[in-house]
Amino acid sequence: MTGTFEFSITGTDEFARCGMMRTTHGEVATPAFMPVGTRAAVKAMSPDELWAMGYRLVLANAYHLLVRPGPELVREMGGVARFMAFPGATLTDSGGFQAMSLAGINSISEDGIRFRSHLDGAPVMLTPEGAIEVQQALGSDIMMVLDECTPYPASHGDALKSLEMTARWAERCLRTHSSPTQALFGIVQGSVYPDLRRMSARQITSMPFDGYAVGGLSVGEPKEAMLEMAALGASMLPVDRPRYLMGVGTPSDLIAAIGMGFDMFDCVIPTRNARNGMAFTRRGRISIKRAAHQRETGPLDPECECRPCRTFSRAYLRHLFMSGEILAARALTEHNLSFYARLMREAQAAIASRTFRAFANSLTAALEEGEAANKETD
Amino acid sequence: MTGTFEFSITGTDEFARCGMMRTTHGEVATPAFMPVGTRAAVKAMSPDELWAMGYRLVLANAYHLLVRPGPELVREMGGVARFMAFPGATLTDSGGFQAMSLAGINSISEDGIRFRSHLDGAPVMLTPEGAIEVQQALGSDIMMVLDECTPYPASHGDALKSLEMTARWAERCLRTHSSPTQALFGIVQGSVYPDLRRMSARQITSMPFDGYAVGGLSVGEPKEAMLEMAALGASMLPVDRPRYLMGVGTPSDLIAAIGMGFDMFDCVIPTRNARNGMAFTRRGRISIKRAAHQRETGPLDPECECRPCRTFSRAYLRHLFMSGEILAARALTEHNLSFYARLMREAQAAIASRTFRAFANSLTAALEEGEAANKETD
Repeated sequence: MTGTFEFSITGTDEFARCGMMRTTHGEVATPAFMPVGTRAAVKAMSPDELWAMGYRLVLANAYHLLVRPGPELVREMGGVARFMAFPGATLTDSGGFQAMSLAGINSISEDGIRFRSHLDGAPVMLTPEGAIEVQQALGSDIMMVLDECTPYPASHGDALKSLEMTARWAERCLRTHSSPTQALFGIVQGSVYPDLRRMSARQITSMPFDGYAVGGLSVGEPKEAMLEMAALGASMLPVDRPRYLMGVGTPSDLIAAIGMGFDMFDCVIPTRNARNGMAFTRRGRISIKRAAHQRETGPLDPECECRPCRTFSRAYLRHLFMSGEILAARALTEHNLSFYARLMREAQAAIASRTFRAFANSLTAALEEGEAANKETD
Repeated sequence: MTGTFEFSITGTDEFARCGMMRTTHGEVATPAFMPVGTRAAVKAMSPDELWAMGYRLVLANAYHLLVRPGPELVREMGGVARFMAFPGATLTDSGGFQAMSLAGINSISEDGIRFRSHLDGAPVMLTPEGAIEVQQALGSDIMMVLDECTPYPASHGDALKSLEMTARWAERCLRTHSSPTQALFGIVQGSVYPDLRRMSARQITSMPFDGYAVGGLSVGEPKEAMLEMAALGASMLPVDRPRYLMGVGTPSDLIAAIGMGFDMFDCVIPTRNARNGMAFTRRGRISIKRAAHQRETGPLDPECECRPCRTFSRAYLRHLFMSGEILAARALTEHNLSFYARLMREAQAAIASRTFRAFANSLTAALEEGEAANKETD
């Protein structure tokens, strides 16, 4: 399928694996978290900051870039990575999820997704073929098939219909894919029904994709259902291809999913929550708004070596946040993304040294203990 | 008056001078432009970026820090420079200008300025003594006296009354000043009346301030009146003390004012205009919104070596701006502040080599030519 994309597993520990993806725009160590760069920018961050934190792969949203500035402009500018001046690799989603969740009026049929741009109301038709053409214009290293992200809750019958259409769309995407420098990943659906998840996994993995994703989770279902479906999904995916758990999640979700054998993740939590004043630490989450931080001279996280933690007191960060300063969004985003990057580096090292279970247990316990302690003082 | 503050002139060229200020928090080469860090943060910038651009002195607004987070908190945190993690020096205004322009209800009397906080409506009285106490708590390297910034237009009679009160307030500030590590500057008023400007300058310079500012300009008067009053003001100020032209201005204003013998400037233009999509270049201003930039692969300013100009195309910056991305504000602010920093470095070098007039003429011509060319293509 793809000329340049390669994935090799360099270590395993129980179900967890560490490895290396080789893309047109460089190597990416896995497990890898992808910061979300919706409009070809990770909100509040500059591309050199992402690079310095260790990120080698970021996600951009095809839907947003389709409506503005348009895929042809991005192609002219040398593709999305070059457009956003990121020296690493990019993954684009297919645009389907945003077309369904953001676009004003839409209808889904066998043909594809019909929607109106959330910017100017212009009618757009996104077909499986079109989704690949858009992503080939965007020039991402990893493209995603157009799928129907089954809403939650869905009846067994609706979820079945949905995953079967997703499988037909996946085939159409595969037939359209013509760019040897871009990988294409399939997506497993099936809502919260184990039999449907198995059926979808069999259908999608019967097609020669470069990697496989588990989608349709973190859309409102209970956390236990998410973890159960994720574990089932991972167990159904080929061992020798990257496994991507879409839209997940919190630090403890990521640790759990790495333990299941997933290799790739994306989530808006570290970036969006940062802009709302929330910081992740080894001892649970912190809300910088709290009056308790008003006179605190210490950093967000004494165990963190990120630039904001080396530079700013909690008192100053709280002042910035309360004042609506852009620097608050910058500093908290940089901290949270540094936290996630370090989490991935530590997970990689723990898998390589076959100590992942101890690492996961100790980190999860510290996070939970911190959460409990934070609640007491709230 | 002040133990640690020193100013030495290291070169002159006609009226222009270059020099060095020594403050408690380090040396500052003059002519110096001060980025405005209203709430102890220069909007969209981090302190290490300001330092890397060459800034050694930033301005913070006493009024804003008085209402939030409060001067005592800033004092506890080691003063405003340390609070904002800026490794250089700071200047604070007295708070009078913002108290008059932002605060909801206010009255001005011989005692001082009575206002209500724009945040919570709490009544606050800012006296000359209080303004110094606030700034001593803030721990800035250079404090400003409380003055009445005479509104424009003002009758000759009103402007006279106003400058006389400003002089009495200046004396009260001087008597209150007790911190040997902080310099205190006086402020000349007098609206657009040459006789009043002379009178105010005589009154203020008869008091032993560490430096002298010309205030009450760029408040709505015609540009010619501003330049005339500034030139008159500079000619009335002592040669051996820093001269600060408050609230000015555009690149060509700064060149003109340096030619008059001013040493220090502050203005929100480079930062505020950046957030509105305007970039300064050697060939005039650019509005990044313009459709003409949509597909431009070149940088904002091909003659600029700032990080955004080395990194981003105009097409990408336009996309960021149209998408409301924080990175647009960051990149344009960094570019504009880099432009201003370079302007100051070049002015210093031109004065030192006694080529300031040629430098000023050539730069002013390029800026004007660029403006004309930009208009044609608008």
